[in-house]
Formats: sequence, C-alpha cells, structure tokens
Amino acid sequence: MTSAAAAPSPEGSKGNQFDSLPADAFKELFRGHPGGVAVITADDGTGPVALTATSVASVSADPPLLVFSVSALSSAAPVITNADTVVVHLLDADDLHLARLGATSGVDRFADRTAWTRLTTGEPVYNGVRAWVRCAVISRMDAGGSTVIAAHAIGASIERDIEPGQPGGALVYHNRTWHRLGEHSRLD
Amino acid sequence: MTSAAAAPSPEGSKGNQFDSLPADAFKELFRGHPGGVAVITADDGTGPVALTATSVASVSADPPLLVFSVSALSSAAPVITNADTVVVHLLDADDLHLARLGATSGVDRFADRTAWTRLTTGEPVYNGVRAWVRCAVISRMDAGGSTVIAAHAIGASIERDIEPGQPGGALVYHNRTWHRLGEHSRLD
Repeated sequence: MTSAAAAPSPEGSKGNQFDSLPADAFKELFRGHPGGVAVITADDGTGPVALTATSVASVSADPPLLVFSVSALSSAAPVITNADTVVVHLLDADDLHLARLGATSGVDRFADRTAWTRLTTGEPVYNGVRAWVRCAVISRMDAGGSTVIAAHAIGASIERDIEPGQPGGALVYHNRTWHRLGEHSRLD
Repeated sequence: MTSAAAAPSPEGSKGNQFDSLPADAFKELFRGHPGGVAVITADDGTGPVALTATSVASVSADPPLLVFSVSALSSAAPVITNADTVVVHLLDADDLHLARLGATSGVDRFADRTAWTRLTTGEPVYNGVRAWVRCAVISRMDAGGSTVIAAHAIGASIERDIEPGQPGGALVYHNRTWHRLGEHSRLD
C-alpha cells in the first residue's frame, strides 16, 4: 500500500490535516481512473478552438445539464472559458483520430477543412462523430488553475445510436492508453 | 442520424435557440458516454452515507483538485452536499461489489461492519478498494437538481498501484453495463 495520508502520517504530510496531497501522489491516484472522451469546440469570434476532455459528465437530464473542466494550460482555454455556447462531441472508438487531434499540442486542429463545418449559430462541429450536443454555458467555477463549466444542452445530433443495455464501441482513456468497450470488456 | 437540434429543426425544438434538449434525447446522448467509477462517502455527524458516482474527474494536480456531481435524488445527497470533507474511493474491477452497493437504493450501505472503518478524522472508508482520497470541499455550484462539488485532496491511500502506460483492471460504467479495461480492450 502506498500512503500519502493526512496527519498523522510518516509520508507526504507536514502534520496539518489540510495539507495538500503532493502532485505526484494525486497523479498516481488518477492514473488508475478512466474517463469517457469528448472534444469540446467553441468560437467566441476569434476563431475556432478544440480540446479533448475526459471530464465531461451528465449532471441532470431535466433540465439537461452537463459539466466539464478546462485547464488553463490548454491553448483552447481562453476561448472556451469565455464562450457563451460550446459544442461537446461525445466520441466512440471510431472517433479516435479526433480524440488524438484535440489532445495534440501545437497543431492546427482545424487545418482539414473537410473535417468540420459550422452550425448556423457559428460553432464549429466535426463531421461524423458519434454524437454532439450544443450547450449554453450557465455557470463557471474556478478550481485552481482550471475552470469547471456547467452547461445547458440546447441541441444535439446522434450519428451512431446505442441500444439500451448493449455496449457500443465506446472510447475510454485510461493511464495514457485508449480503450474500446464492447462485449469483450463486459463484466455482467 | 437522430437529430434534436436547436432552431431551425423539424424535431424536438420549439423554434427558440435556447430551448432545452428534451430529457429523453439527453439520456440517449449520455447512454453512450462511459465513466470511471467512484464511491463517495461522508458523515456530517448524522451517520455515514455513500453513493456511487461516475462524474469524478481530476481538475488540477497542483493544487490537487477534483470535481464530482451529486443528484438531489440520491439519499446521500443532503449529507454529501453539506459535508466539509468527503472520501472519494476510486474503484477498479475488483471493487465491483462496492460499486453496486453504492448504486442500490433502499439498502443500508454500512450494514457489514467488517467492510469499512473510520479515519481518525471521522470519515467512513471502505476496506480493500483500489485507492481512496480524502478531500476538503472548497466550492459548490448548483446545476439544476444537482450540486457540482470541487474538492481539495488532503490525504490518500493507494492499495493497488498501476504502472504508467499499463492498463490495470480499471472499472468503467457504460450504458447500464459494467466493464473491465485491460490489454483486451486496448486500442494502441
């Protein structure tokens, strides 16, 4: 067992119960925590941006709300945290190329003009993804160097539907590796 | 393609660009979006509570912050949204029994006194899980009937470590089914 507990602890603690967990220990914890994969796009008038996120979660179906976080370290952060509306693309394993594109630094994520279009409302949308949902940002919360954003779903398109209770080819990111779910991964 | 787009759209829209996406369409979208699995516990002095959540995400490593959401529909919601500190158990496939326990309504999630203990600071912790992290709640954001909670990691224990770049037996919830990640699910 690796331990980096709050006081009293021999390791990783300065003896105060509100000491922070060291960054390395925190990274080690979350290395083992998988996440579904989304690409978030926006354009606040300064040009389209995109980033890959594993933090997208459904919060409520009625009203239809979701939440995600954006690190200030991302090149897309200034636009996404400033935008009134965003498009959240919910990816499956067939969209792995897009997941990689949104996670690669220093590239033009919109260089291929055949890969994306714009909604009539202006937001960039990548073609052919499993599903996307257009959202209005309803609140923002600062959290360290990141911003947690809650957004209200106002429009959507589902290209590849999934039957209830049947695993589709879902895409998961885990410990720096990409995975596909299906009958082969099912536990029950 | 199933479409429930914002105006102009033939389906699912009342012609206003800020109409909500219908709840059924929103559920259909997120049915295809997988999530890592956590059990969150707390005790605000009224007794221990636990719930299973697929919304836990790392937000920042330095400071070490995570976020999750709690639906007001959960029996554990009043205590967890009121607590100053919580314990987030990050599960793997060996912890499936605990994931099911925290997702089952109407049961005493602490009936088995051999399955859990308390930290010296009072929070309930289940034994034998892959990892847990004790957190101080730093902010709360209302989102529909749910609360989005950001928390600062202040202590942790890792029972089953995972090598960087090597898939462990991670647990994923997807479309009402449970999955285990490993070499069998890997794409790259």
